[in-house]
Amino acid sequence: MKTFTALLLLFPAGLLLAQPPQLEKLEKKTILLFTPHPDDDTFCCAGTLALLARHGNNIHIVIYTNDDKGSYDPEMTGERLAAIRKTEEENSCRILGIPKQNIHWLQFHDGMLEYANPLDLVEQVTKIIRTYRPDVVMTIDPGSEYVRWHKTDHRMAANNTIDAIRAAEWHLYFPSQRLHDGLEPWQVPVEAYFYVTQKDANYWVAIDEVLDLKLSAAAAHVSQFEPSIRKYRPDWDPKDLASIKKYLQGRAIKKDGHVVESFRIATQFNQQ
Amino acid sequence: MKTFTALLLLFPAGLLLAQPPQLEKLEKKTILLFTPHPDDDTFCCAGTLALLARHGNNIHIVIYTNDDKGSYDPEMTGERLAAIRKTEEENSCRILGIPKQNIHWLQFHDGMLEYANPLDLVEQVTKIIRTYRPDVVMTIDPGSEYVRWHKTDHRMAANNTIDAIRAAEWHLYFPSQRLHDGLEPWQVPVEAYFYVTQKDANYWVAIDEVLDLKLSAAAAHVSQFEPSIRKYRPDWDPKDLASIKKYLQGRAIKKDGHVVESFRIATQFNQQ
Amino acid sequence: MKTFTALLLLFPAGLLLAQPPQLEKLEKKTILLFTPHPDDDTFCCAGTLALLARHGNNIHIVIYTNDDKGSYDPEMTGERLAAIRKTEEENSCRILGIPKQNIHWLQFHDGMLEYANPLDLVEQVTKIIRTYRPDVVMTIDPGSEYVRWHKTDHRMAANNTIDAIRAAEWHLYFPSQRLHDGLEPWQVPVEAYFYVTQKDANYWVAIDEVLDLKLSAAAAHVSQFEPSIRKYRPDWDPKDLASIKKYLQGRAIKKDGHVVESFRIATQFNQQ
Amino acid sequence: MKTFTALLLLFPAGLLLAQPPQLEKLEKKTILLFTPHPDDDTFCCAGTLALLARHGNNIHIVIYTNDDKGSYDPEMTGERLAAIRKTEEENSCRILGIPKQNIHWLQFHDGMLEYANPLDLVEQVTKIIRTYRPDVVMTIDPGSEYVRWHKTDHRMAANNTIDAIRAAEWHLYFPSQRLHDGLEPWQVPVEAYFYVTQKDANYWVAIDEVLDLKLSAAAAHVSQFEPSIRKYRPDWDPKDLASIKKYLQGRAIKKDGHVVESFRIATQFNQQ
Amino acid sequence: MKTFTALLLLFPAGLLLAQPPQLEKLEKKTILLFTPHPDDDTFCCAGTLALLARHGNNIHIVIYTNDDKGSYDPEMTGERLAAIRKTEEENSCRILGIPKQNIHWLQFHDGMLEYANPLDLVEQVTKIIRTYRPDVVMTIDPGSEYVRWHKTDHRMAANNTIDAIRAAEWHLYFPSQRLHDGLEPWQVPVEAYFYVTQKDANYWVAIDEVLDLKLSAAAAHVSQFEPSIRKYRPDWDPKDLASIKKYLQGRAIKKDGHVVESFRIATQFNQQ
Amino acid sequence: MKTFTALLLLFPAGLLLAQPPQLEKLEKKTILLFTPHPDDDTFCCAGTLALLARHGNNIHIVIYTNDDKGSYDPEMTGERLAAIRKTEEENSCRILGIPKQNIHWLQFHDGMLEYANPLDLVEQVTKIIRTYRPDVVMTIDPGSEYVRWHKTDHRMAANNTIDAIRAAEWHLYFPSQRLHDGLEPWQVPVEAYFYVTQKDANYWVAIDEVLDLKLSAAAAHVSQFEPSIRKYRPDWDPKDLASIKKYLQGRAIKKDGHVVESFRIATQFNQQ
Repeated sequence: MKTFTALLLLFPAGLLLAQPPQLEKLEKKTILLFTPHPDDDTFCCAGTLALLARHGNNIHIVIYTNDDKGSYDPEMTGERLAAIRKTEEENSCRILGIPKQNIHWLQFHDGMLEYANPLDLVEQVTKIIRTYRPDVVMTIDPGSEYVRWHKTDHRMAANNTIDAIRAAEWHLYFPSQRLHDGLEPWQVPVEAYFYVTQKDANYWVAIDEVLDLKLSAAAAHVSQFEPSIRKYRPDWDPKDLASIKKYLQGRAIKKDGHVVESFRIATQFNQQ
Repeated sequence: MKTFTALLLLFPAGLLLAQPPQLEKLEKKTILLFTPHPDDDTFCCAGTLALLARHGNNIHIVIYTNDDKGSYDPEMTGERLAAIRKTEEENSCRILGIPKQNIHWLQFHDGMLEYANPLDLVEQVTKIIRTYRPDVVMTIDPGSEYVRWHKTDHRMAANNTIDAIRAAEWHLYFPSQRLHDGLEPWQVPVEAYFYVTQKDANYWVAIDEVLDLKLSAAAAHVSQFEPSIRKYRPDWDPKDLASIKKYLQGRAIKKDGHVVESFRIATQFNQQ
Repeated sequence: MKTFTALLLLFPAGLLLAQPPQLEKLEKKTILLFTPHPDDDTFCCAGTLALLARHGNNIHIVIYTNDDKGSYDPEMTGERLAAIRKTEEENSCRILGIPKQNIHWLQFHDGMLEYANPLDLVEQVTKIIRTYRPDVVMTIDPGSEYVRWHKTDHRMAANNTIDAIRAAEWHLYFPSQRLHDGLEPWQVPVEAYFYVTQKDANYWVAIDEVLDLKLSAAAAHVSQFEPSIRKYRPDWDPKDLASIKKYLQGRAIKKDGHVVESFRIATQFNQQ
Repeated sequence: MKTFTALLLLFPAGLLLAQPPQLEKLEKKTILLFTPHPDDDTFCCAGTLALLARHGNNIHIVIYTNDDKGSYDPEMTGERLAAIRKTEEENSCRILGIPKQNIHWLQFHDGMLEYANPLDLVEQVTKIIRTYRPDVVMTIDPGSEYVRWHKTDHRMAANNTIDAIRAAEWHLYFPSQRLHDGLEPWQVPVEAYFYVTQKDANYWVAIDEVLDLKLSAAAAHVSQFEPSIRKYRPDWDPKDLASIKKYLQGRAIKKDGHVVESFRIATQFNQQ
Repeated sequence: MKTFTALLLLFPAGLLLAQPPQLEKLEKKTILLFTPHPDDDTFCCAGTLALLARHGNNIHIVIYTNDDKGSYDPEMTGERLAAIRKTEEENSCRILGIPKQNIHWLQFHDGMLEYANPLDLVEQVTKIIRTYRPDVVMTIDPGSEYVRWHKTDHRMAANNTIDAIRAAEWHLYFPSQRLHDGLEPWQVPVEAYFYVTQKDANYWVAIDEVLDLKLSAAAAHVSQFEPSIRKYRPDWDPKDLASIKKYLQGRAIKKDGHVVESFRIATQFNQQ
Repeated sequence: MKTFTALLLLFPAGLLLAQPPQLEKLEKKTILLFTPHPDDDTFCCAGTLALLARHGNNIHIVIYTNDDKGSYDPEMTGERLAAIRKTEEENSCRILGIPKQNIHWLQFHDGMLEYANPLDLVEQVTKIIRTYRPDVVMTIDPGSEYVRWHKTDHRMAANNTIDAIRAAEWHLYFPSQRLHDGLEPWQVPVEAYFYVTQKDANYWVAIDEVLDLKLSAAAAHVSQFEPSIRKYRPDWDPKDLASIKKYLQGRAIKKDGHVVESFRIATQFNQQ
């Protein structure tokens, strides 16, 4: 492995980033976002995604799981919930300007990502990265210095994505992808990690102008809110909708007078 | 997954807990404690358990491993040590007021929990939670913000228990438990994590009045102390016993003039 | 498990170490170093190793992986790179005074250590420890309080080595090693963890007098530097060599007027 | 392993069985039947089971899978089908005289038994055998001389049951079952293998007198027949029912003027 | 599972096939062939494939492994051999009239198929079957009554393909393929198993008119014959080529005055 | 893979062997025997081994498991039994003329070989073959045409050894063994499979002259016979010993007036 990186281990990671790229100002780039569940992308980043979509970026959403467990409705079955969640995610993305065909489902069961074959999973995501050759990868933060996440889908998605980012760069990882699929290695230039701790955040996108879109996109996940989460109904009572939007708006993060979304941005993969 | 929780990710975990329940004052509740080895429950919580037993709580101890490795005695075999450890744990629990039939052994070998099938393990513990429907789960702390533990049984037990707490709440996890076993989902209302770091502790139980019981319960694990750990003998030389009790008393944690046991208490599962 | 250790969980780890042994002054001892890749040992510890070799210590290097992925050269194959890396590591060790026959290759593929069978891996390394019965084990730091490392080989090597250190001490772990191989248990008296965070470092070895050796040993890993990493060549253009040595010297850590290597030293295995 | 058995390897298996026990004449014995799916027990053995139930035998049915895949109905979900199959199996058993509480579901998904953790599966079934201490184990034939079955649930169930029969006999397999659960080893005296090839069959039970019960028990699996298998309905059109019973009767095996069920009976586990 | 099939277990498999379809006379059908290695398809079936191609059938070849081990040349590396084998297979297929884009590589390493994750492998092949919806699946024979093959790639490929054929038929296997990928279940109407034992063969295709094509297609696998297998060369010495063709012609199977290829044809999946 | 072999699939295996080597007449060769348990080598082959030892052959015995389960003595523990079995095997081998240091224990638990990591196991045995470069490999018969063995250690040992024989021949399997260990590939010239079915046996060694040695070697496995198997004692009552020897002699296979041991001999690995 490269010596430069190895030596840098001894210095604080923060020093590495001279000038973080301005995520929300990108135009006509390829953005590849990996999310554990269909809604983590909305809650973390809907505002940023709406801005990126407006600027003509090509956004692809890769969703690790089918989210087929999160209902208290005793009549719900997993297969039916998976279908509901698929539609809700498509609705949410459409609001943000991301077409349905740009959503890619890896189809693992909710809560079961940790039990997937880890090597196969890295290989699969490496192939996606080499296929789309993204200018930015957005993904759940594995933690800057230690292993985060007790929720297993989050931990596995976070770790797996960075493993794949590293593998994608070197053609000797999964060489069949070059030989049989014609895919060349790809070095991801920028990672924007979401769901960051306060201590790790180093970049904030002001989303005031698209806050309404974010609230609508969040509300598209009807089945995940009261009352639908306890007794499924596919639509909102207008009163409930107004209430939940108000609630969500109240919980939004503010910084310097703006509603923001937080990220940890890195310009190269942390080889630690 | 529920949006409320997802949004809360962005706020410090500490803010969530308006008023931690007073663990040691509970009465006639069901307490389910998960421990990696037979003695971790004693060292972490014997005082609290003695108080809970006095108050008529129904305490169940689930022990992940059979502790069949921890002896330097060259004549010891693993199978014999497992039998010794079983008896010592039963003795220790009896001192605290917990009957033998409330001890449940998951029967993994000491040091081998990490190598168990993780999905089967979550399923098994989920079933236990849905069976006993505890008011409080006591378990080894997985860490509040990052993955702790280098000792693998500790790491696996910590992670597995919280995975199972999450799964137990949603009927679509392991639905056979509802269909074939008649077990309904169960949302654990309070977790009391033990073996916490100083930084993570947020609750302390004063155990002055039961300290003697704790010392006796600890001393019941004869095989784990000198001299029995090097040359097994099932009983104490009175001089050794006095000495070890004095030693243990000296190492006990003090806070505000009391001997205490430390916990991190949370009122709902940390969905991170 | 031993009660003493369990109770100590409640105290800061730092208090445990009354007087760290002076690593660089050891003489005629057995040093066993575990490294994820052939070069991590060089970058972390070449100066310390050179000093230890001068003092007549018997140094064994155990390398988890064959480092067969780290080249951007499109003509490179993994098998050829593995052969190159083997020679480079042997050259590097020779410069430091460590003979080729003291290098032991566990032969996992680069980046694939995480996917090895973890129980077999612990058993294998336990056997190595019981065979060499080292006075000091040097290994990559798993982190003092939490699980570190996102690079999977680093995480796996760190965790596996401490698991094996713990197992090596108790004869009931892998008892066939005693019965069939005649290997007695061994308690490692000192661990020197390398690649430590600034916060965790508690010992520094001044390497001024052997800095030249370290730079030469680092430069022996030709394939891992520009330009060889992009278009393989087995030797240095003198200009490039001078430049890289200057660069490496500039990145070296300084403390109290010395060029140093940092460690976290512990005198017994952290049973957490 | 026992030498007697090992030497017997060299002789034809057929010689071993001096006088096969008369299965259908047993009274007040414990019969433990292992079936891959809920209906294999019916198709193979319903007549024999009805006779055994009449004679006061205590019959327990252990079902490896929940049979949640076998429907062409496009509206069906796996979870709903599992519930249907549970009810159908209970109905079928009631017809034969086996109470619902004697049916034990191992809860694997249909078609997925092959992918279960094999060691855990053997341990689980060994525990069942040691708990019920059966006089006869009835199970799907693994083949007398070679490994049979391309349908993976059949292969896995066949192999796993005989592995467990062997393990149950020796207390050193899964010794925790003796220590922690108080279960003693158990040597199964007779195995009756069903779904045998014509070549391997060595015993036939005449079921003429209970053929009606068998046809009714088979027809209780409504969802597995036309038309319910394509468009689920929970009951029979009388015309369809008559037709299927006639069809099944026509396919029944005849031997020496009787309708029979075929078995391969062995009086000790084939240690090959 | 379907009762009809279950009952049929008791009858000889041979009775099931009233009139085997005439494989070589098919026109404009979709043929999906699964082969363990790139050349098994040639040796088993090149003549039949040539005839099928002439008749306008749409032939897809799915190759489980990349065949990167089969060379005695000490200078060969696995990655180079994989590239050679890919080209050779493409050459071989071109001779038979199958275009390069119809060759699909599953990319497992030679000899390592047995160690793939079996559930993922079934899922992957099920998806292929549901995508192409073949009129005929050609695949290596798993054996009619027992598990064949000691060579692990052959055993795994044989077993996996029939597992996938079964799974493809039922929409409740891998339901994400319907939900997320829009793939409907598919019941394979005819299987033609190759590499059959003499006892199991039930169909023979006369290939006299395309024998030359078969010999040329076989000879396209230059690296697998002397002298290239010992010292790689990409082309034939004309003398060697003539000699090998003569040898292969001499080994061809004859039946009733024709050169033939042997198959075991079944019109539905053997649910055993 | 080699075309010659592939084509030969179509012919009966029996035709391949022009003239089987005369096993018992070999001199000064290297014989490598793989046995599932310590005693299978005795029961199958003690006479042949005694003859081979007399003729100055270098015999190595590789034992997959430690045989730590086969006792009905309720006081026995697995670890104690493993030690007993080791001594008994050493005694048995000494009687046959095979020194203790030529016995190699792979150290798997009895009955657990099936659950070992199969790829690691093949790699390990491949290394042994490449190290000893045997003229003959003796191993348990996997079956000539189908997969045999229901006893899992037997099945796994049989399959694994032939997988390793195949891998050993090609340097691209486990290339680190060549690079890091200096081991060249090795093509095993002759396999002698033991524990064969009557149908598969194709070679018989007359052992009349060493039958006494065989009986004594068998009797050295004291713990595996009555009465020691029920209540362990390390030695024989002379009466019991006489009785068991008589019994064993009576069970010995006879052919053409000789006491024989049966084998299936093959001169190259069956690539099926």
